[in-house]
Amino acid sequence: MSSLVIIKIGGNVIDNPDALKRFLTSFRGIQGHKILIHGGGKIATQVAEKLGIATTMVEGRRITDQPMLDVVTMVYGGLVNKQIVAQLQAIGVDAIGLTGADANTVRSKKRAVGEIDYGFVGDIEEVNSGQIQYFIRQNLVPVFAPLTFERSGSLLNTNADTMASAMAVDTAVRNEVTLVYCFEKKGVLSDPTNDDSVINELTPEKYVDYKSRGVINKGMIPKLDNAFKALEKGVKRVIICHADQVAEAISGSGVGTVLRLTEEKA
Amino acid sequence: MSSLVIIKIGGNVIDNPDALKRFLTSFRGIQGHKILIHGGGKIATQVAEKLGIATTMVEGRRITDQPMLDVVTMVYGGLVNKQIVAQLQAIGVDAIGLTGADANTVRSKKRAVGEIDYGFVGDIEEVNSGQIQYFIRQNLVPVFAPLTFERSGSLLNTNADTMASAMAVDTAVRNEVTLVYCFEKKGVLSDPTNDDSVINELTPEKYVDYKSRGVINKGMIPKLDNAFKALEKGVKRVIICHADQVAEAISGSGVGTVLRLTEEKA
Repeated sequence: MSSLVIIKIGGNVIDNPDALKRFLTSFRGIQGHKILIHGGGKIATQVAEKLGIATTMVEGRRITDQPMLDVVTMVYGGLVNKQIVAQLQAIGVDAIGLTGADANTVRSKKRAVGEIDYGFVGDIEEVNSGQIQYFIRQNLVPVFAPLTFERSGSLLNTNADTMASAMAVDTAVRNEVTLVYCFEKKGVLSDPTNDDSVINELTPEKYVDYKSRGVINKGMIPKLDNAFKALEKGVKRVIICHADQVAEAISGSGVGTVLRLTEEKA
Repeated sequence: MSSLVIIKIGGNVIDNPDALKRFLTSFRGIQGHKILIHGGGKIATQVAEKLGIATTMVEGRRITDQPMLDVVTMVYGGLVNKQIVAQLQAIGVDAIGLTGADANTVRSKKRAVGEIDYGFVGDIEEVNSGQIQYFIRQNLVPVFAPLTFERSGSLLNTNADTMASAMAVDTAVRNEVTLVYCFEKKGVLSDPTNDDSVINELTPEKYVDYKSRGVINKGMIPKLDNAFKALEKGVKRVIICHADQVAEAISGSGVGTVLRLTEEKA
């Protein structure tokens, strides 16, 4: 099994050109096959505002009506994605920018209207891991924007965290997958007021313990629940770390938080 | 040698959802390997206007300063490209949307500042036809936005007609290439006031004759000069036709204008 590293970066990296440049430089240094998934950042909201389109967020999620779908398609699929690709090419990484529609890589279903109508938001149905495998075997580095599509031909706004974990799970059949969530902190903290209180390793047992003692805070719980689900479905390890430390965290230098099903033998 | 059809569509198709849908449906019907290259259309100008960015055109070409480069990256590389890809996927065409930066497919050089400073406009230096070959051999259908990149990592706005002919010439080494320019008319007209006066076949001899008699008008001359250059460099035929007639024109039904170096034997 060949190793595959899947890294998700969010707004805190994308919105800061210096942080992005630093990240892309260390991303280049990561050996072996790799995939980058980026979130949206604040640019979509800024562009929407200038275009006179109101942004509505419900519980941290963007309501995506048709004008907003056009904005995120422009900003995520165009501006952010292609700038990252061009910057990676400039430093010698053979990147290829994709949405889930490209080469039919990630198909989703428009979320059913329940209490909230999220609009053109997609829940992932199928990752075409054969196609993704084929790109990485060709030594291309896929860079995914958080957009998928449904059979009707509509693009759908899709959560980048979910896209990263779905891709990690589906490629784990043929690869030893490390899934990395870049974060604004150095990892999962045991003391939210102390940025250096990083928990270096989390197993399901330790996680239950930290939760029962109230050490791990509310906001982290859904993220970690999803990460452990990915491990149960075959992903080898999940790392949560600061974007500046991604190369060290992957090489196992003891920075960031590493999630595994069982403790690693010394 | 396998056949390859490279089709360029412009604003008159992109700006009209019904015309685009009709075109994509007939595009699906074209047998064998194919590549689509789209221009920008009016949406970039409209988006720029709403964002308060002035559009300056000199001799029909867009001056591309940094804010305008961001707009065309959003609109061409994001909105237009991904909508076409998603619509093709919906009708069963395994499309993959690309700019020249993606997988290092088309590298260019920022145009030197002469009498006019065009800004971030690229003149093509190299088409990575090996990479493009690899996509089409995998039965993917590349859909190119008119954007390339230079080694520095900057994206560059690039003329879609030029991109199509450069790609046709560079893939002609390994393929029997048909290059198709979709046009608002049914082909090259012998009488500009009569839309049905299509010249069905043009050879260099006929072209010289039509020019000397003033039959072919000014605007068409640079287009046709470029088309004949592509033929001299190995492209098998160039077709100029209406987007609605692309499938028939390729199958040789006698619609549109076909350019060849020598007359086809009956």
